Amino acid sequence: MIRRYGIGKRLSEMVTYHGFLYLAGQVAKDPSGDIKAQTREVLDQIDELLEEGGATKKGILSATIYIKDMADFAAMNEVWEAWVPEGQTPARATVQAMMAKPEYKVEIQIVACNGMSQHGGEHHH
Amino acid sequence: MIRRYGIGKRLSEMVTYHGFLYLAGQVAKDPSGDIKAQTREVLDQIDELLEEGGATKKGILSATIYIKDMADFAAMNEVWEAWVPEGQTPARATVQAMMAKPEYKVEIQIVACNGMSQHGGEHHH
Amino acid sequence: MIRRYGIGKRLSEMVTYHGFLYLAGQVAKDPSGDIKAQTREVLDQIDELLEEGGATKKGILSATIYIKDMADFAAMNEVWEAWVPEGQTPARATVQAMMAKPEYKVEIQIVACNGMSQHGGEHHH
Repeated sequence: MIRRYGIGKRLSEMVTYHGFLYLAGQVAKDPSGDIKAQTREVLDQIDELLEEGGATKKGILSATIYIKDMADFAAMNEVWEAWVPEGQTPARATVQAMMAKPEYKVEIQIVACNGMSQHGGEHHH
Repeated sequence: MIRRYGIGKRLSEMVTYHGFLYLAGQVAKDPSGDIKAQTREVLDQIDELLEEGGATKKGILSATIYIKDMADFAAMNEVWEAWVPEGQTPARATVQAMMAKPEYKVEIQIVACNGMSQHGGEHHH
Repeated sequence: MIRRYGIGKRLSEMVTYHGFLYLAGQVAKDPSGDIKAQTREVLDQIDELLEEGGATKKGILSATIYIKDMADFAAMNEVWEAWVPEGQTPARATVQAMMAKPEYKVEIQIVACNGMSQHGGEHHH
C-alpha cells in the first residue's frame, strides 16, 4: 500500500510502500544560511518526515548527498556525523551538483525503512 | 524473482524484483528537441516501461531528475506537472548535471512499485 | 532486519534490509589510477560487498554512475561491459559530477537484491 506525505502538485515530500520510505530531496527552507545551518535544517526535516512515516534515522538505508561546492564537504560532514546514530550509519554517496536554486548549498535524498536493526546488528570488517 | 526488460550489453532499461521496478535513467531517443520535447519523450518512455512491468505512474515512489541547465527547470516542470497524477505525486530530487551526450537536456531515473494507493491514500500536512 | 557492513562514523559501506542491499558510493581506494584502473577497483569492491551480503552482481537492480569527466565515458564502459553478466545487466544512470576528492574519476552507487533471476528470466523487447 502506497502512502504519500506532504503532497504537492510537483512532488510529495515522502512516499512509503511495504516498509520502505522514499523521501524527496530535502533542501533548507531558509536558503540564506551557511553550509552548517542548511545541513542542520535538512537533517531536521528528514527527522520529521521519518517520524511521520513511523521510522527514525536508525532506519536510513541510503543517503545521496548533493553539495554545491565540495569546499563545504568537511563542514557538512561535521554536522552529519553529529547527527547519524553511532554504529548505525547508512550507506551514502556524495557528489557535487548545483540544485534548483543557486542559494542551496546541500540537498539530501533518503531511502529508509521502518524496520529495526538486529540485536547486535553491526558487522565490522 | 528478478525480471529484466530491454536488456542490452551495458544496461537493462528496467529490472523488477518483489514488486519494485528500477528503471534506467531515461533520456530522449531524439536529443535534437528542446527541453519540453525531451521531457515529454522521457516521460513517454517511462509510461511504456511501467506498463510493461505491470505498473503505472501512480506507482512511482521516487524520481531523480538530472537537468543539464537549471535555466530549463521551469519548462521541464511545466511538462512534468501536466504528467504526474494529481494528488499522487512521487518523491523527487532534481540536480544539475551533464549527461552522456551534450545534447541531452534531461535524464530521469525512476523507482516505482506495482502496488496501489490506499483508499483515500493522501496525507496532507 | 537491518544489517550493516563496514560501519564507520560517517557511513556504512552497505546496509541490507528484507533482501535489498544498499551500497555506499564506491570510489577507488587508490585514486592515482586512470579511469580504467579506478573503474576496475570500484567493481572489485562492489563484488566483495555483494558477496558479504549474500548476493552477486547478477542481483544488481540499479547502478548510478558518477563520472568526473564524460570524456572518460567510453573507457569506463569498456571495463563495465566486461564485468556485467551477459543478459543480466542492471538498470543504470550515468551523469557527470565531481566527487569528494578531485582525484576520483568514477563513483558507483548500487542497489541490489539477494534474489535469483527467474528461469529464462530475460524479456527482450
